[in-house]
Amino acid sequence: MNVTIIDVAKKAGVSPSTVSRVISGSTRISAATTEKVKAVMEELGYHPNLMAKNLVSRTTMTIGLLLPRNADEAFLDLFFSEVTRGILSQATRAGYDLLLKTGKSEQEELEAVTRLAKGRRVDGIILLQSRRDDTVIRYLLQEKFPFVLIGRDPERPDILSVDNDNVQGAYDVTRHLLELGHRRIGYAGGPLELVVSSDRYEGYRRALAESGIEPDPRWVFGADLIRQDSTAAVRALMEQPERPTALVVMDDLLAFSLLGSLSELGWSVPGDMAVFGFNDNPMSPVSTPPVSSVDIGVYQLGLQAAGLLLKSIKNEEIAERRVIVPHRLLPRESSQPPGS
Amino acid sequence: MNVTIIDVAKKAGVSPSTVSRVISGSTRISAATTEKVKAVMEELGYHPNLMAKNLVSRTTMTIGLLLPRNADEAFLDLFFSEVTRGILSQATRAGYDLLLKTGKSEQEELEAVTRLAKGRRVDGIILLQSRRDDTVIRYLLQEKFPFVLIGRDPERPDILSVDNDNVQGAYDVTRHLLELGHRRIGYAGGPLELVVSSDRYEGYRRALAESGIEPDPRWVFGADLIRQDSTAAVRALMEQPERPTALVVMDDLLAFSLLGSLSELGWSVPGDMAVFGFNDNPMSPVSTPPVSSVDIGVYQLGLQAAGLLLKSIKNEEIAERRVIVPHRLLPRESSQPPGS
Repeated sequence: MNVTIIDVAKKAGVSPSTVSRVISGSTRISAATTEKVKAVMEELGYHPNLMAKNLVSRTTMTIGLLLPRNADEAFLDLFFSEVTRGILSQATRAGYDLLLKTGKSEQEELEAVTRLAKGRRVDGIILLQSRRDDTVIRYLLQEKFPFVLIGRDPERPDILSVDNDNVQGAYDVTRHLLELGHRRIGYAGGPLELVVSSDRYEGYRRALAESGIEPDPRWVFGADLIRQDSTAAVRALMEQPERPTALVVMDDLLAFSLLGSLSELGWSVPGDMAVFGFNDNPMSPVSTPPVSSVDIGVYQLGLQAAGLLLKSIKNEEIAERRVIVPHRLLPRESSQPPGS
Repeated sequence: MNVTIIDVAKKAGVSPSTVSRVISGSTRISAATTEKVKAVMEELGYHPNLMAKNLVSRTTMTIGLLLPRNADEAFLDLFFSEVTRGILSQATRAGYDLLLKTGKSEQEELEAVTRLAKGRRVDGIILLQSRRDDTVIRYLLQEKFPFVLIGRDPERPDILSVDNDNVQGAYDVTRHLLELGHRRIGYAGGPLELVVSSDRYEGYRRALAESGIEPDPRWVFGADLIRQDSTAAVRALMEQPERPTALVVMDDLLAFSLLGSLSELGWSVPGDMAVFGFNDNPMSPVSTPPVSSVDIGVYQLGLQAAGLLLKSIKNEEIAERRVIVPHRLLPRESSQPPGS
C-alpha cells in the first residue's frame, strides 16, 4: 500500500499543504512542526516522489559545480578536491546534493551549463573561473539563472562572487621577495585571459613598479609553456645574461614542475633561484625543498560560494554580493635571500 | 519561438521517434544519424526538457556516488578524490553526470540512498564500502535498483562489484616483511565490521600462520584508537616487553599518524619500527621517511565501477560481475630489515 501525503497529514495532525511545505523546505513552517512531520514521514515510510515534486515546485534540491577541466584531470589538482569539500559541506548541511559537470573548453562549459539550466537539472550553479568577456556568465545572466563565481568578472562587478584579493596576494609575495633582497624577480603563470592570472600578474607588476623596477619581459613566462616542456622553459630562463634570482609562480603545481627542471639542469633552490607559489598544495610543506606558498583558504572559498548560492536560490537577502576570503603568506625553505 | 522535436526531425529528415531515441542515448541509432540529429539540434538551438523527458523515459543521465563520511571529511582523504576522478571520467565519456551524496553512518547512508532511488534522482548508484550484513545493499537489491559496490559483500558474491584482492594484498605485504627478517609483526586497521578491514586482517593472519607465527593480540589495534589518540596507542604498543618490529597499516593516513607519534616518543622509523601502509597516498613518497605502500589502482577502481554501472543501467550484457583491479607493492624507506 502506498503512503500518501494525506496519510502523513492526518497522522501528524496538520494540513496536507503543511506537509507539502515541509517537503519543499519552506522556512515558513516552525521547527517543531517540521520535526513532527518528518518523524511521521519516517514512521510511515513516506518518500515524496521528488521528480513529480520538482515539476511543481521547480526545485531540484541540487546545486551544480562546473569543473573547468576535462574529467580526467579535474581531481588531479587538489584545489578541486578542497573546493568541492567546502561546497559539499555547506550544501549537505542545507539538504542539497551536488552535481558535478566538466567542460574542457569555453564551448564545452557553455554546453554543460546550458544543459543544466535549460534542463532544470539544478537550482543554481557554481563556476570556478572566469575569462575576459565570459560567454558562460553572459548566458547565465541572460537566463536569470542563479550562479556564484569563485573568482571575479572585471566587466560585471555586481554578480555574486567569492574570491581572494589576488592582486594584493601577488603584491604581498613580490614585496616579500623584494624585502629578502631580490631585485630580478620573474613571474610564471597564465594564461592572462584567465582573470586570476592577470590579477596576480598585476600585483606582481605593481610591487616591482613601486620599487622602481621594470620587469624584463623575458622573466615572465606562461603556464602552458611549463606544462608542455618545463625543462626547455627553465633552460631559456637561466641562459639569460641577466637571469632572475626569484620567481613568483601562480600555482604550486607549476612550482613543482619548475623545481624538477631546475634540479635536473643542476640549479639549486633556493640558492640559485627562490620560488614562491600559490594555493598551498598539501604537498608543498613536504616537498624537497618545502615550497613557500600562499594559503588562499580554498575550503572557505567553496563553503562561502555554496552559502551565497543557496541564499540566492531561496531569494534570501544578500548583504555582500562579493565575499573576499583572506589569504596568508607561508614562507618556507624555497624562498630565501639571493645566493643563500 | 520554441523549437520542438518535430522541427528537429523535419530538418534532419528523420522521424520524431528517431530524434527521441537520439536524445535518450539509444544504441539502436547509427552513429551517422546520431551525428546528424545532434548537429541539427545544435543548429536550431533545441534543448530537450530533461525533467519532462525523465518522467517518460525514467532516465536521468546521472549516476550517484555515496561517500561514506560526513561531507566535511570525505575529500580530505585523497582516496575519494582519486576514485571520483575515475568515476567522473567514465561517466562524462558516456554523457552522464555525477551526483555526490554523503552519509556518516549506516542509517544516514540508507536515508540518502532511499531518497536517490525512490525519488528517481539517479539511474544507478556506486557504493564505496560495505559492512557485514549491509542494510544499504539489502535495500538496493530489494528495490532492484542498479548499483555497483567498490569492495565486496561476503554474503552476496553475485552483486556487481569492483575490488582489489585485499586478502592477497595484505598477505603480500606481510610476506615481504617476513622476508626482510621481521617475526613480530603488528596490524593496525579496522573496524573489522568493514569488509576491507577484515579482508586485510585475514591476509596478514594467513601469512603469519604459514610461517608458524601466532600474532600476539596486543600487536593488533584499531583505527579508531589511532584516530582518537595515536600517541597513547603507540605508547601502549611500545611498552610491551615483546613489542613488534614491523606494522602492517591498513591506510597511509593511519601510517602518517603512527609515524608522527613514534617520532614524538623518540622512536625511529624504520630503525625501531618498520611501517608498511596501503592505498599509496600522494604524500607517501614525499613524507619523512617515504612510506612503503600498496598501490591499489584507485583511479581504475572508479573507472571500472562506473563502466559496470552504466552497462547495468543500459541492460547490456555483463561478462564479469566481479572485477578485480590488481595491486602492486611499493616498498620505500619506511620498511627495512629489523634494526636497520
